[in-house]
Amino acid sequence: MAEHDVALNLVWVLLAAFLVMFMQLGFALVETGSTRAKNAVNTMAMNMFIYPLGVMGFWLAGYGLLAGGHPGWPSLGPQATAAREIGIQAGGHLYGLFGWGRFALLSAPHDPANLAMFLFSAVFMDTAATVPTGAMAERWRFASFAVYGLFMSMLLYPLYANWVWGGGWLAALGVNWGLGHGHVDFAGSSVVHMTGGLTALAGAIVLGPRAGKFRRDGTVGAIPGHNLPMTVVGTLVLAFGWFGFNAGSTLAGADPRIATIAVNTMLASCAGAFTAVIAVWTTLHKPDVAMACNGLLGGLVAITGSCAFVSPAAAVLIGVVAGLLVVRAVRWIELRFRVDDPVGAVAVHGVCGCWGALALGLFADGTYGAGWNGVAGPVRGLLFGDPRQFVAQLVGAASNLLFVFPVAFGFFKLTDRLIGNRVSSEVEQSGLDPSEMGSEAYPPG
Amino acid sequence: MAEHDVALNLVWVLLAAFLVMFMQLGFALVETGSTRAKNAVNTMAMNMFIYPLGVMGFWLAGYGLLAGGHPGWPSLGPQATAAREIGIQAGGHLYGLFGWGRFALLSAPHDPANLAMFLFSAVFMDTAATVPTGAMAERWRFASFAVYGLFMSMLLYPLYANWVWGGGWLAALGVNWGLGHGHVDFAGSSVVHMTGGLTALAGAIVLGPRAGKFRRDGTVGAIPGHNLPMTVVGTLVLAFGWFGFNAGSTLAGADPRIATIAVNTMLASCAGAFTAVIAVWTTLHKPDVAMACNGLLGGLVAITGSCAFVSPAAAVLIGVVAGLLVVRAVRWIELRFRVDDPVGAVAVHGVCGCWGALALGLFADGTYGAGWNGVAGPVRGLLFGDPRQFVAQLVGAASNLLFVFPVAFGFFKLTDRLIGNRVSSEVEQSGLDPSEMGSEAYPPG
Amino acid sequence: MAEHDVALNLVWVLLAAFLVMFMQLGFALVETGSTRAKNAVNTMAMNMFIYPLGVMGFWLAGYGLLAGGHPGWPSLGPQATAAREIGIQAGGHLYGLFGWGRFALLSAPHDPANLAMFLFSAVFMDTAATVPTGAMAERWRFASFAVYGLFMSMLLYPLYANWVWGGGWLAALGVNWGLGHGHVDFAGSSVVHMTGGLTALAGAIVLGPRAGKFRRDGTVGAIPGHNLPMTVVGTLVLAFGWFGFNAGSTLAGADPRIATIAVNTMLASCAGAFTAVIAVWTTLHKPDVAMACNGLLGGLVAITGSCAFVSPAAAVLIGVVAGLLVVRAVRWIELRFRVDDPVGAVAVHGVCGCWGALALGLFADGTYGAGWNGVAGPVRGLLFGDPRQFVAQLVGAASNLLFVFPVAFGFFKLTDRLIGNRVSSEVEQSGLDPSEMGSEAYPPG
Repeated sequence: MAEHDVALNLVWVLLAAFLVMFMQLGFALVETGSTRAKNAVNTMAMNMFIYPLGVMGFWLAGYGLLAGGHPGWPSLGPQATAAREIGIQAGGHLYGLFGWGRFALLSAPHDPANLAMFLFSAVFMDTAATVPTGAMAERWRFASFAVYGLFMSMLLYPLYANWVWGGGWLAALGVNWGLGHGHVDFAGSSVVHMTGGLTALAGAIVLGPRAGKFRRDGTVGAIPGHNLPMTVVGTLVLAFGWFGFNAGSTLAGADPRIATIAVNTMLASCAGAFTAVIAVWTTLHKPDVAMACNGLLGGLVAITGSCAFVSPAAAVLIGVVAGLLVVRAVRWIELRFRVDDPVGAVAVHGVCGCWGALALGLFADGTYGAGWNGVAGPVRGLLFGDPRQFVAQLVGAASNLLFVFPVAFGFFKLTDRLIGNRVSSEVEQSGLDPSEMGSEAYPPG
Repeated sequence: MAEHDVALNLVWVLLAAFLVMFMQLGFALVETGSTRAKNAVNTMAMNMFIYPLGVMGFWLAGYGLLAGGHPGWPSLGPQATAAREIGIQAGGHLYGLFGWGRFALLSAPHDPANLAMFLFSAVFMDTAATVPTGAMAERWRFASFAVYGLFMSMLLYPLYANWVWGGGWLAALGVNWGLGHGHVDFAGSSVVHMTGGLTALAGAIVLGPRAGKFRRDGTVGAIPGHNLPMTVVGTLVLAFGWFGFNAGSTLAGADPRIATIAVNTMLASCAGAFTAVIAVWTTLHKPDVAMACNGLLGGLVAITGSCAFVSPAAAVLIGVVAGLLVVRAVRWIELRFRVDDPVGAVAVHGVCGCWGALALGLFADGTYGAGWNGVAGPVRGLLFGDPRQFVAQLVGAASNLLFVFPVAFGFFKLTDRLIGNRVSSEVEQSGLDPSEMGSEAYPPG
Repeated sequence: MAEHDVALNLVWVLLAAFLVMFMQLGFALVETGSTRAKNAVNTMAMNMFIYPLGVMGFWLAGYGLLAGGHPGWPSLGPQATAAREIGIQAGGHLYGLFGWGRFALLSAPHDPANLAMFLFSAVFMDTAATVPTGAMAERWRFASFAVYGLFMSMLLYPLYANWVWGGGWLAALGVNWGLGHGHVDFAGSSVVHMTGGLTALAGAIVLGPRAGKFRRDGTVGAIPGHNLPMTVVGTLVLAFGWFGFNAGSTLAGADPRIATIAVNTMLASCAGAFTAVIAVWTTLHKPDVAMACNGLLGGLVAITGSCAFVSPAAAVLIGVVAGLLVVRAVRWIELRFRVDDPVGAVAVHGVCGCWGALALGLFADGTYGAGWNGVAGPVRGLLFGDPRQFVAQLVGAASNLLFVFPVAFGFFKLTDRLIGNRVSSEVEQSGLDPSEMGSEAYPPG
């Protein structure tokens, strides 16, 4: 590959990483707008502080576990497939379970490709890590949150990510067991969003619902957020940054597939929002804007895994399904499972992330991904002739469910015993801002 | 052209499209900040929902009408002129009136240049479509707005855009009638902003003013927006995204003219804001920040059409005139024409858009645009030796006025009869948020 | 150098300039959130209006003084060092004190590299110019602010910037006096941030504290800002835009060092935020989010000068020190020096800017900067074998202190006499928005 392509690819990966970092702002706005004014500083602070906390932990340990055994990334080849093709030959270090090396970036401290991959990986970790702050908002002790931030960035996220993106056992499902190209997740439907969503679910269950959410008489209280325009603004910020999230995941600006990815990202998000609004408008008779936001985000989460592999028409279909799913899932999680998730994070990231992982196994149309994870030929889904690819997607999603959820659940149970996860009911009643944070969001003039 | 230039151009067009999509956030903030708290969810929701609504409509029909007959775009040549030079040879399908093809992106679903052009065209359509939500805010039924969104994205915007950018009859004014290079609009002073602004004017007239705006005794009520900082923030977001809007319109990162465009965009916007503030400060004795915002946006709108063709000094002059125009126009529209435009959208987009279309016909300095629209030699304005180019600009602006305005007017009259455009006076009085949207912007803790 | 590298470099410089312009939004949010609602329009307006005001002044005069004598920039060579190597040969015009030429961009009005450098330089000037609006908020007459805006953009900023970046005497410390590579400031720890921070200090001293800040009994009043979430959001916007600020300063996307720069920028900012929170949490027992923001910004300011020259581990260390410094400095400035700086601008930009300038002289590891400022061999700090480089850094920082501070102080004394800097105590009491700006930030529905 020519030198100028390497330069363009480096520029592309960096710019995309900047956009993904900017998504942190979107999460902060969505979550803070969706919670009460008395907890606004706390919600904002968790979203702001997960970034330095996570990056420090990822720099020290996480990146090494994710990518330590991965020689492919530093090439920044003409397209992602090249990097991934090489990657599989290295595999995770210990039976494909984790990498080892690159800790604190002490080796090759100025290698451009290694540093670019660190940057790109760090903001993806950050995205996964910030999801639970929404589902667990308005009742989580800040000290417990801080411990969680290090656990997520140093251990939980890197492990599953290593399995899929670091040459681990899920990436090797193809070469080892003949399941298509192994578990393929282009930009993180399972790696980032299911991981974040299922961790959020575990945390919300362990924490329990906010006071007043589920009443003794069986009714469910509505606890509206304090600033709905803020939530909408945050959603648009996420829609903007997501272009970097998905299109940057080629790791190559010289890969013309970036156009397909960007268009699919836009179409799925718009189809998701459109469908969700129609769904609530026709049933509840109001064009609920919070649900439009959830639909848009659900569409984005769902297309993330397959955006490079499917046609625009399939992207619209994936978004439509995500829009319907998210409307249902928000209600199910609240009414059937009686889990209190103030921002709908589990529905958006967990449920739609799972759908996104499976959707690739259905709609990958065989026009991309030759050599991916060391398997010859392009990636094809069930509808395009390769049912084994769908099985690989199922295995990937199932292993996320069976690994991330219980580990997160156990972690939250443990921290609950050791330091306590939940603020006192007095603090919850008066708001976390004065006592936990020592600040007020909107002091009077 | 070398392959690496194509790669750089694709990256450039995508990144610019992302920036333009981000402008949706700017519009949402400017318009919501400029309206009352009781309508904040409604205003925010229109700005958020026009994006999925418009993109779905544009994907199904609009893009096909705009670009269906256009073989030039997919080349992503070394500069825009190349694409446009080829484009003119194809022309719109039916007598240069509209294209036909590419519907739902079903043909060539993975062609990078086609997809990049779809993305870029979609966000431009979205910009035009979101302008009327400001002028028609605080009284527009959401159902009527939704119908409008489909009409604008599927039909009205694509038609005029085809005439100028899709090889239609306005582009062909040069080759067919000897009028310079035909109607030249680099990034959309007429195509996007006049279209949006005149549609906004038609809608605001048909809707009528908000209750309390024009009183029986002839006085005009001030209805201040609920969050002026939000308006300023939105303006800065627009100024940021506009760099993508204008500089991306080369369709080529390898075209060094992007530097001229970016600088002209900055200078005209700053000159517009500077002039508008001086104008209000010296007459009304306060440095009105809302007018500074309008001046900045007016300068941006005005330079959009000619940014690649004029010198930095001319860009400053174009911005100065826009700054003066916008201050006057805001007052005229309100006081003389007695049209209620809560955010000044008609003045900013309609009036300054018209000025921008004409300004190219005055100041194009003959250093760019060789071969544009199939005419040899660079583009020159009246002051640089080609009065016929000014006539082409006049014809383009006049045809926007004579086509877009009446068609939009008729459309709004029709929807008013069929479904009703305006909320009841009870709903208007209590705010659109509870009854139309089913949500409150800022629920008490 | 090949032509496609020039194209990539031009794209890189423009995109980075867009990101830096977007930082204006971050400053607006941080400062407005940190001040009271009755001054929100005024604070927002200063941050919005400094952009057009500064750009007009910089276009007319500032750029010519900064870069008029600089033939190197327009080459946009493969990396910054090439440009700077040539640059030094030209030097400032008069004994290396200022440039002369390029006024109003009248010469070479379409030269891409000249225009790109104007754009990039203008947004850097804008960053420096907007810093004092924070420290001087809530009591500064708008007319006096406007005069300041022209002074800063046309004269004060360009002079010091010429000495370091325009081939002036500080850049020539190496070739003329054997002090390493002369004063090296990669992206503006001294040129932008010390200049902004020391001007802010001078202004805050001349203006005096806000009413109620320092009481007669010696106690210090807390004057909390009206919207803490807004401050956090602004901080994240700045963290995003800063990637353009630092990585764009290679002036070359084809320089693979951009990866080192981006990672160092992230790591230092995160280390700064992390350290600042730990520092306040352990001493004041609350994870103060405003201090987390200051720590993040302090880390960004501190790494700005050396980001291309140091290893990631050194970047973390630089950030840690910045985080500790900013917590201390905020208190010292308030309690010991009794200067009222509502947003902590002096601590963040002045103190951490100074630290950033010196840090390069300690940690530059000899892997970058060969030929910088006309001196052979890479740049090395004290710890990597070149104590003279540290002296050059000291001289640069000292000359900023000894030139910028007194000149700014004198300027504010002069304007105080000529037009008055400070609003009346009645206006301050009732807020600047009604009387100075003629607007209210949050009018009741």
